[in-house]
Amino acid sequence: MPSSSRFKLLLRRFRAGRISAAVIEEFVRQLPYRDLRFAKVDLHRSLRRRFPEVIYGRGKTPRQIASIAQALREAGAQVLVTKVSPATAKKVRQHLPQLRYFPEAGILSDAVSSLSGRGRGGVLVLSAGTSDFRIAEEAAVTLEALGFKAERLFDVGVAGLHRLLKHLPKIQKASVIVVAAGMDGVLPSVVSGLTHCPVVAVPTSIGYGASFRGVAPLLTMLNSCSPGVAVVNIDNGFGAGYLAALIAGRNKK
Amino acid sequence: MPSSSRFKLLLRRFRAGRISAAVIEEFVRQLPYRDLRFAKVDLHRSLRRRFPEVIYGRGKTPRQIASIAQALREAGAQVLVTKVSPATAKKVRQHLPQLRYFPEAGILSDAVSSLSGRGRGGVLVLSAGTSDFRIAEEAAVTLEALGFKAERLFDVGVAGLHRLLKHLPKIQKASVIVVAAGMDGVLPSVVSGLTHCPVVAVPTSIGYGASFRGVAPLLTMLNSCSPGVAVVNIDNGFGAGYLAALIAGRNKK
Amino acid sequence: MPSSSRFKLLLRRFRAGRISAAVIEEFVRQLPYRDLRFAKVDLHRSLRRRFPEVIYGRGKTPRQIASIAQALREAGAQVLVTKVSPATAKKVRQHLPQLRYFPEAGILSDAVSSLSGRGRGGVLVLSAGTSDFRIAEEAAVTLEALGFKAERLFDVGVAGLHRLLKHLPKIQKASVIVVAAGMDGVLPSVVSGLTHCPVVAVPTSIGYGASFRGVAPLLTMLNSCSPGVAVVNIDNGFGAGYLAALIAGRNKK
Amino acid sequence: MPSSSRFKLLLRRFRAGRISAAVIEEFVRQLPYRDLRFAKVDLHRSLRRRFPEVIYGRGKTPRQIASIAQALREAGAQVLVTKVSPATAKKVRQHLPQLRYFPEAGILSDAVSSLSGRGRGGVLVLSAGTSDFRIAEEAAVTLEALGFKAERLFDVGVAGLHRLLKHLPKIQKASVIVVAAGMDGVLPSVVSGLTHCPVVAVPTSIGYGASFRGVAPLLTMLNSCSPGVAVVNIDNGFGAGYLAALIAGRNKK
Amino acid sequence: MPSSSRFKLLLRRFRAGRISAAVIEEFVRQLPYRDLRFAKVDLHRSLRRRFPEVIYGRGKTPRQIASIAQALREAGAQVLVTKVSPATAKKVRQHLPQLRYFPEAGILSDAVSSLSGRGRGGVLVLSAGTSDFRIAEEAAVTLEALGFKAERLFDVGVAGLHRLLKHLPKIQKASVIVVAAGMDGVLPSVVSGLTHCPVVAVPTSIGYGASFRGVAPLLTMLNSCSPGVAVVNIDNGFGAGYLAALIAGRNKK
Amino acid sequence: MPSSSRFKLLLRRFRAGRISAAVIEEFVRQLPYRDLRFAKVDLHRSLRRRFPEVIYGRGKTPRQIASIAQALREAGAQVLVTKVSPATAKKVRQHLPQLRYFPEAGILSDAVSSLSGRGRGGVLVLSAGTSDFRIAEEAAVTLEALGFKAERLFDVGVAGLHRLLKHLPKIQKASVIVVAAGMDGVLPSVVSGLTHCPVVAVPTSIGYGASFRGVAPLLTMLNSCSPGVAVVNIDNGFGAGYLAALIAGRNKK
Amino acid sequence: MPSSSRFKLLLRRFRAGRISAAVIEEFVRQLPYRDLRFAKVDLHRSLRRRFPEVIYGRGKTPRQIASIAQALREAGAQVLVTKVSPATAKKVRQHLPQLRYFPEAGILSDAVSSLSGRGRGGVLVLSAGTSDFRIAEEAAVTLEALGFKAERLFDVGVAGLHRLLKHLPKIQKASVIVVAAGMDGVLPSVVSGLTHCPVVAVPTSIGYGASFRGVAPLLTMLNSCSPGVAVVNIDNGFGAGYLAALIAGRNKK
Amino acid sequence: MPSSSRFKLLLRRFRAGRISAAVIEEFVRQLPYRDLRFAKVDLHRSLRRRFPEVIYGRGKTPRQIASIAQALREAGAQVLVTKVSPATAKKVRQHLPQLRYFPEAGILSDAVSSLSGRGRGGVLVLSAGTSDFRIAEEAAVTLEALGFKAERLFDVGVAGLHRLLKHLPKIQKASVIVVAAGMDGVLPSVVSGLTHCPVVAVPTSIGYGASFRGVAPLLTMLNSCSPGVAVVNIDNGFGAGYLAALIAGRNKK
Repeated sequence: MPSSSRFKLLLRRFRAGRISAAVIEEFVRQLPYRDLRFAKVDLHRSLRRRFPEVIYGRGKTPRQIASIAQALREAGAQVLVTKVSPATAKKVRQHLPQLRYFPEAGILSDAVSSLSGRGRGGVLVLSAGTSDFRIAEEAAVTLEALGFKAERLFDVGVAGLHRLLKHLPKIQKASVIVVAAGMDGVLPSVVSGLTHCPVVAVPTSIGYGASFRGVAPLLTMLNSCSPGVAVVNIDNGFGAGYLAALIAGRNKK
Repeated sequence: MPSSSRFKLLLRRFRAGRISAAVIEEFVRQLPYRDLRFAKVDLHRSLRRRFPEVIYGRGKTPRQIASIAQALREAGAQVLVTKVSPATAKKVRQHLPQLRYFPEAGILSDAVSSLSGRGRGGVLVLSAGTSDFRIAEEAAVTLEALGFKAERLFDVGVAGLHRLLKHLPKIQKASVIVVAAGMDGVLPSVVSGLTHCPVVAVPTSIGYGASFRGVAPLLTMLNSCSPGVAVVNIDNGFGAGYLAALIAGRNKK
Repeated sequence: MPSSSRFKLLLRRFRAGRISAAVIEEFVRQLPYRDLRFAKVDLHRSLRRRFPEVIYGRGKTPRQIASIAQALREAGAQVLVTKVSPATAKKVRQHLPQLRYFPEAGILSDAVSSLSGRGRGGVLVLSAGTSDFRIAEEAAVTLEALGFKAERLFDVGVAGLHRLLKHLPKIQKASVIVVAAGMDGVLPSVVSGLTHCPVVAVPTSIGYGASFRGVAPLLTMLNSCSPGVAVVNIDNGFGAGYLAALIAGRNKK
Repeated sequence: MPSSSRFKLLLRRFRAGRISAAVIEEFVRQLPYRDLRFAKVDLHRSLRRRFPEVIYGRGKTPRQIASIAQALREAGAQVLVTKVSPATAKKVRQHLPQLRYFPEAGILSDAVSSLSGRGRGGVLVLSAGTSDFRIAEEAAVTLEALGFKAERLFDVGVAGLHRLLKHLPKIQKASVIVVAAGMDGVLPSVVSGLTHCPVVAVPTSIGYGASFRGVAPLLTMLNSCSPGVAVVNIDNGFGAGYLAALIAGRNKK
Repeated sequence: MPSSSRFKLLLRRFRAGRISAAVIEEFVRQLPYRDLRFAKVDLHRSLRRRFPEVIYGRGKTPRQIASIAQALREAGAQVLVTKVSPATAKKVRQHLPQLRYFPEAGILSDAVSSLSGRGRGGVLVLSAGTSDFRIAEEAAVTLEALGFKAERLFDVGVAGLHRLLKHLPKIQKASVIVVAAGMDGVLPSVVSGLTHCPVVAVPTSIGYGASFRGVAPLLTMLNSCSPGVAVVNIDNGFGAGYLAALIAGRNKK
Repeated sequence: MPSSSRFKLLLRRFRAGRISAAVIEEFVRQLPYRDLRFAKVDLHRSLRRRFPEVIYGRGKTPRQIASIAQALREAGAQVLVTKVSPATAKKVRQHLPQLRYFPEAGILSDAVSSLSGRGRGGVLVLSAGTSDFRIAEEAAVTLEALGFKAERLFDVGVAGLHRLLKHLPKIQKASVIVVAAGMDGVLPSVVSGLTHCPVVAVPTSIGYGASFRGVAPLLTMLNSCSPGVAVVNIDNGFGAGYLAALIAGRNKK
Repeated sequence: MPSSSRFKLLLRRFRAGRISAAVIEEFVRQLPYRDLRFAKVDLHRSLRRRFPEVIYGRGKTPRQIASIAQALREAGAQVLVTKVSPATAKKVRQHLPQLRYFPEAGILSDAVSSLSGRGRGGVLVLSAGTSDFRIAEEAAVTLEALGFKAERLFDVGVAGLHRLLKHLPKIQKASVIVVAAGMDGVLPSVVSGLTHCPVVAVPTSIGYGASFRGVAPLLTMLNSCSPGVAVVNIDNGFGAGYLAALIAGRNKK
Repeated sequence: MPSSSRFKLLLRRFRAGRISAAVIEEFVRQLPYRDLRFAKVDLHRSLRRRFPEVIYGRGKTPRQIASIAQALREAGAQVLVTKVSPATAKKVRQHLPQLRYFPEAGILSDAVSSLSGRGRGGVLVLSAGTSDFRIAEEAAVTLEALGFKAERLFDVGVAGLHRLLKHLPKIQKASVIVVAAGMDGVLPSVVSGLTHCPVVAVPTSIGYGASFRGVAPLLTMLNSCSPGVAVVNIDNGFGAGYLAALIAGRNKK
């Protein structure tokens, strides 16, 4: 961590009376974030949290997204923007054509392309129904942007249990499994009962009536009879992928 | 239906001018219910709905339960009291020792003992966890009181799927299956995906935290991805057994 | 069940040493579903569950619906797509003109036309208000697609009880009754009190204010004082029809 | 209204310069309420609202109830205490034996006994199930304390519709009807559909599971398809009786 | 009531043997409602409930509204359609120009114009804020359609109590008061504390954040510390006006 | 307060017999509000509450806003309209070009421009994320319209704690701090733990899934472990600014 | 602030090379909190937040409370324990008889007695009903412990508005007002409309049915039409008093 | 895995024709679970999920717990019973004195004692307040029973941030951190922002009012602005510990 070692150096010099307190203060004031008025871009997050700051795209204008992304790029960081609609993506890419758009995942990033096919393995991403696969894609692309290889198994809900059981070997070999499910949200419980790795469960707002925009699968997952299920927010595919990466990354140096 | 044919006879006689309107009025006034001030016992429910009136025990004093039960017995009907605590049961049985108490089901009845071992078959009663089995027992004893044979399979939750799959032949042969489950409530979805008979799902209030006293399994069951799941109220073991009996009774004369 | 008997044959041959384990493995891998990347079409559901796999239309593109429907048709299965808007239906039918669209029910199917007027009887479909009849239609068309004759009685809510009571004979003769009701959702309770057959209650999101998009009628139905009411999800006309078909089908060979 | 005419007199005298402003101020300060530190007893409520101030018994000690009741009695007002447990009632009556306790209604009052059998008529009080009758009694005794005759019809829920329909003439002749119902809460809707008088609906917390301590019947009543239903708080038998008295009292001088 | 006296005549004739049971049956079958497939118009509601059947406009097509209205008019009944958007109103009036549209109330009716200025008095309609006045208008126009004169006092919320208190004499003379309020919904409690007539409280969905589309004022009103408050559904201006008319009509012959 | 002192003068004259009661009555009738039919503009609010009446813009037409604003201006009061969309602002300004529009705050006012840069200080306005800054702006502009200087610190959420801690001196010197935060809403708790001034917390509806449109941060703030946090409604930037002004104004004459 | 100035001194000495870094580290390690294993007592909170750390009594054993209180006292801080039952208070006082117990407020403190009758004024504490006065007392005693004089006005709810209006002069002179109200929770809105000081609103769990243990008054207060209302958690009398003290303390040196 | 390798052996023998299908069937029937009627003890869970089956103690009688524990012990598995009250623990230990009881964690186990002081490290268990430490203890003892060393840091909530920051080095070195927090539940967000390891957040039901028995911290955690937070059910200390063990165990062989 360069900035941190530089800080220690400065402190030692201050101790030695070679520099004044003003220098220290100035250094801290220059700590690597950049103020864009509407946003303070956290440029040393990757130092502190291993991954760069991620931009939550919803509710931001294309111009705001482009500015933040540009600031990150200028600082040498990689860019990952989530919950981006196709229209917004198009406008952002007019400023930053280097960003690649993943329409099914709603992600805009310059981190994924460079890693395709490589990446560390062992992460499985499952979705229960055809409609849940967008959130699963968001998790998978996030994993890929963070340097992992994400194997996808979509539409393997329990209504047709044989579709799931066919992949039992993969499930039992995985180091961590992300499961996206809406409606009754039972898939993570069933998957967790079949394996001994952590399952990251992401409820989706897919469904209608008493699914209450994802509350039903959220409660199912929180109450899973099978321990070892980690729950994230409804539709938070990015969060699921990020958490899976943190877990999968544990056995790496 | 005796009372109904008697009514038709009276109407024909009235038509013929042989009896006065007052007789008809009197007959209607005598229609078989009995007023105990706090309750109007519906004595001809069994004519109208095939099964006798059922007494909901909670919130009634032992004396009230005994009075209603006595009125039903005097009218020749069978007695089924639900949600009865051991203490209440003991006091009621001091008045009506003919009633048998089923402590795990919380049921007091004179209808079950006479049918044990016989009864029409094909009904399976499952529970997901050890703690759900009281509600499952309530359903099973209700079925037995209504003349059905209820085969029990308890503690077959999805956390140990092999315990369930071992009983697959029974599950696939059943004519109707009652499934009681608390916490995540996923068992009915899984069972329904394995069979082609209707599944009566009864959520239980077993659990804590975000199970919200049965709301979590209730939502899971209502959102079941596998069609063919009929849901009843939380902890309503009686209702589940009753509905299963109505369904199973369809193919009988 | 052809695939199952074929499997037994293979097992016997393997036992006899005439085929290798690889053949068995290959057979299992060929189990009848088809992977369309975004969906794994369950082609042998009709074997397992008596009815073909049903496509939930909402949230899928016309192209996705058409692909899945095509795969089912090529496997000789019948097609039933629910929650389809007129615009989507029009686009799907450009690929598959054999599918018939039922605009009030929002269903696209090739199963109904062949059965019109025939089908097994005894199923009654009621709606409480004029606005609930779309969900009731969804249930009725589902029943027809599954080979049943569904008699409709719409707009018979309790605000004008005489409209309902006029149909008392039909209600008392039915083998199963589907009741769709929004707002206060009291119709299933009243109907159930008048008959001895199971009532499948489907709450609708019709209403405003404290109906909370169907929560009010859902709770009313779950708490029905009259036992024998099976509840399904809000607006789940398909699920109500499917469950009614499972129940009505019980006394058939 | 004595205090009000007295006030006008004082104002006229002040205008005439015969009394000082201090006298006016003093009169206002002496406005008929009494400060018991923990309570300010509103002694002229009966002037303003026709009925005396009512004491909500829950959460108050027997001593507090007795003090407030005593203050009211000393001011010549009648006493009505609601939600009083038998134990509390016993202790209060040690101080004020003139108060009569109605155990089923949970009411302590000196207003009822003097009116028994007399009182203005036309008010009907219905309860749906045996367990709801306590709340109905609270409404009925409140009506009697306010000078009305309350005819009770208990246990006339829709599960046995003939019990209700037998009383149709009374229902159609009433000037206002109070209906207490728990669980599904459908009785007010049905009653309202049979009459042209206002129906005061009071949901009760009787029930379990998805009745959510009275939320289910509350929602049913608020969404009643039959207009003319006035809803009060869950278990608010007093409020229902009070409102019915206000309505029934409209056609009196 | 013509149909009812006709029925008694028929019964007497049947009793005398002069007509057959078939005639009775036929009469009942001809009971005045009309089946429009999607709706069964209840033509004798005005006999039973004093007021004609009211059409809930939301969720119905202009054509459906026009058909039902036409059927009511042909039967000699008056028409009242609620929750009608300007666009729908325009289309319905192309078929039925006799209906008058009240845009602020969202009501379409032929009953109001004939009564303007006349009507029985004593009903006050209050709204708390400027945004609540549409619901208040819906109540007021409903009252006018039912033959009452509705005096309006809009924007008299408690944030400027002097605006309300200025109208105290009117408030204390009213026979029934309708109060529409959103956000905190405190106005009905305050008004009820100032008068001795019943207050019909209608919560509105006006507000944002923790008003939860009318839940906040609904709860405020249900919990009113001042008894005598009758609550109806959120945004149910029609229901409030109808209930007020039933109450106000009590002291009329 | 002119109107109040004038009232006292009148009263003294009335006492002296120099003016009649009619004059007093007339004065009260002329109390400064103006009736625009849909609104009663409270012109003497600034006397009573120190700040002028504020117009809630949502749900009002541009014409209504302009009329109320015009009435306020004619009475010499300042204008502050909240929750105004750009389109509405444009139309209102066609009538009243003197009003300035603050698009990020959604505020229309003639009070702010005159005070820019001056105003009493000590108020800090923080926002947790980039998307929360609109609500923070609404609070800040409200403060400026009320005569305070509002220092903004946006995008200082706890995910990058160093961005917040850098401003610790300002936080510890502030007299009152407004904090807008959506999603988890933890910022007010953290800020309150770092200072000894009151913190006004305004939850925003920014977020998705289990943020439930602001319920999650609302609950976080209400449960703050750090005392001294005052909570206002979700998205109520105006209310937060107003409350902060009331608090900050306490130590001024 | 001794510890802080000592720290500065140490830093200067370290800068001068007179002490080693170890001394600084040791000092920080000795920062004034004390670890009791189950609790880390924050001894310098009074430096940072002006008031000492407050002990939340519920869920702690008498022994735990006594240990923490003892640690605070040994550090020279004052003790304030909230939500203490009489039984717990008795046991704690066996260890620490210096603490005084306020049974109605549920508070145990050594800070109040020394200030009685003195304290800074201007704070008014109101309660709406007799049952709310415990929470109001908790706020009042908290204020007294923090050195303020709290004038109490209890049982001044809006059902008898004249009880409140009589105190109008006090209300309009106050510098901050705490209002505790359960059930409909309307009192803070009404009070806020009558004054120009901040109102701290504390909803209480008093009530039943649809008050939902304080949710109804909480929502009423959050939606208050009258700006200037600061809301704290349900039953949080301590928090209300603390916040009022922070606000009232602003104009003191 | 002995049973699994035995199964493979049997299959090979069957293939070779040396044993009959009946032997295979028998082996499967003997699969290691034991039926105690009320429970089917899953004896080979440790094979499948690495950890033995865990007994949820609440709602089970001491006798039932002892029977299941005995069955597990006889099969050579270790015992872990959660949510055990002291009274229940005492009774179970009369049958099985080998089990050790951890009163603060509510856990009964024979797995912990053997591992004390050893165990794999790197897991930190934090609690926000003194009252949350029971749930944190449940997580910590679970970790110890599963062979991990759990370092505890209790009462480090954000109200006194310096108590937390003092432990920053430990927090930044941990491989996984469990954080238990009630009330506002902000601690996991803050901790996660300071580290790059996964944080397992367990909301507790500690708090009152708007904490809604743990819903408030649950929502805070699900909405954490800082990614990398895994949420489990309210009060699910066991689940948090189990999940942390699965994650921490990833980098071990």
